[in-house]
Amino acid sequence: MRQLGLADICVHQVCLSEQTDFAGSLEMLARHGIGLTALWQPMLAETGLRRARKLLSDNAVRPVSLCAAQLFAGQAACLSMLEAAAELGAESVVVITGGFDAADKTLDQARDQGEAALACLAEAAADFPVRLALEPLHPMVCGFRSVLSSLAEANTLLDRLDQAVPQHKVGLAVDAYALWWETDIARQIDRAGNRILNYHISDWLADTQDIRLDRGMPGDGVIDLLGWRQMIEQTGFAGPVEIEIFSARNWWQRPAEEMLHAIIAGMNRVY
Amino acid sequence: MRQLGLADICVHQVCLSEQTDFAGSLEMLARHGIGLTALWQPMLAETGLRRARKLLSDNAVRPVSLCAAQLFAGQAACLSMLEAAAELGAESVVVITGGFDAADKTLDQARDQGEAALACLAEAAADFPVRLALEPLHPMVCGFRSVLSSLAEANTLLDRLDQAVPQHKVGLAVDAYALWWETDIARQIDRAGNRILNYHISDWLADTQDIRLDRGMPGDGVIDLLGWRQMIEQTGFAGPVEIEIFSARNWWQRPAEEMLHAIIAGMNRVY
Repeated sequence: MRQLGLADICVHQVCLSEQTDFAGSLEMLARHGIGLTALWQPMLAETGLRRARKLLSDNAVRPVSLCAAQLFAGQAACLSMLEAAAELGAESVVVITGGFDAADKTLDQARDQGEAALACLAEAAADFPVRLALEPLHPMVCGFRSVLSSLAEANTLLDRLDQAVPQHKVGLAVDAYALWWETDIARQIDRAGNRILNYHISDWLADTQDIRLDRGMPGDGVIDLLGWRQMIEQTGFAGPVEIEIFSARNWWQRPAEEMLHAIIAGMNRVY
Repeated sequence: MRQLGLADICVHQVCLSEQTDFAGSLEMLARHGIGLTALWQPMLAETGLRRARKLLSDNAVRPVSLCAAQLFAGQAACLSMLEAAAELGAESVVVITGGFDAADKTLDQARDQGEAALACLAEAAADFPVRLALEPLHPMVCGFRSVLSSLAEANTLLDRLDQAVPQHKVGLAVDAYALWWETDIARQIDRAGNRILNYHISDWLADTQDIRLDRGMPGDGVIDLLGWRQMIEQTGFAGPVEIEIFSARNWWQRPAEEMLHAIIAGMNRVY
């Protein structure tokens, strides 16, 4: 496999979300030669669309996607994220379902509800210049972030969407951290094929301390990230490798500059 | 469904492992009318087989199983747990694979290694009076406890074991906490059928704080434990409901008596 250069790397804004704001994160990325990011909705909300557009342009950072719309938050909220993404020139909006609320339904019902909401959104967004990238998350966040817990499930859901909404433009965001444990993952990635719009990575730490916010730098954990990149690129995927690190106890406690250096070093180490 | 009585409940010794020892846990169970337990290997090791047998007999507590053998720890260690279980009158030894060591292999290789180790163990244990109950664990502990991460995977593994070691007596331990997120779980439980030897429960807390040691009391979390029991019993399973609570930050900080009262109250609440 070819060596990745800085141009092939997308650093998610959320990596620097605790140490910088929208403007500060873009300036830091630009200063280190990173030209791609994924926008983090809470940071965008603080900055506003107009100013965000100017900051992206001033820093010559291109937004690959906007993260993350939640189906359970309702169609209006999701559509407004699609509009924001279009205005900022992002190619996709990453979509998760939202977590399981046990008060009023079973898990199967919640999954059905997510599927129905996606079908409605896909219909409404069919003519949009921005695509939806459905992202399954790790089963451990089923309770509060996503009831879609495997790539197998996401593939099956999109098979059904192909029938229900033939003109849809929904693809997938595949996250190695969320899915590294999945049985038959190679087959599921192959099955996902050209549905893959976004490829997210971070490493799984052997002694993970947190149910969501303890992701590791590439090379610090147990995921075979080189093998994963091979599987992803064998589908024909030619997009960037997007690094997305939530790290409440470790990296977010350190200066943004140190974290960004570690990201670049980690990428060089595994790729 | 019928109401469960104390006689239908098995309280795992590990629930009281931080507040009591082997003897203390059995005395407390007996005093509260609980006649079934699952033995916890580290507590047994501290007590010794001979004394353990006497304590079980003195307290009239019957061990349903011994937890947990690790395939990656080697066949000798697993066989010695089978021997201990036989001597104590337990019907099964719960078997997990052990965690993924990324240093020397891929995850697929680790899974193959677990399957091969189980086949050898199944062969060696075919004439034993104790059965092996293979337990898939939650994907979040794939890094350090079990590379077997779903019931689908465990079923497929046992399908293959049926071919490879026709006379084997390996069944399954099914844990609602580990598997509540699994897609098509109803189908997988049905598929497991009479392979189910042990049924473990605890609840998944919506705001789970720990990657392993924050299990909730029945009714405090989001799992439909009544629906789960229905699915399990529809396979013909007639064993006890085994409650297994690891709770480093909450229940293990409280007196054993308080925890046991909460267990009994929780069981009454959901069943």
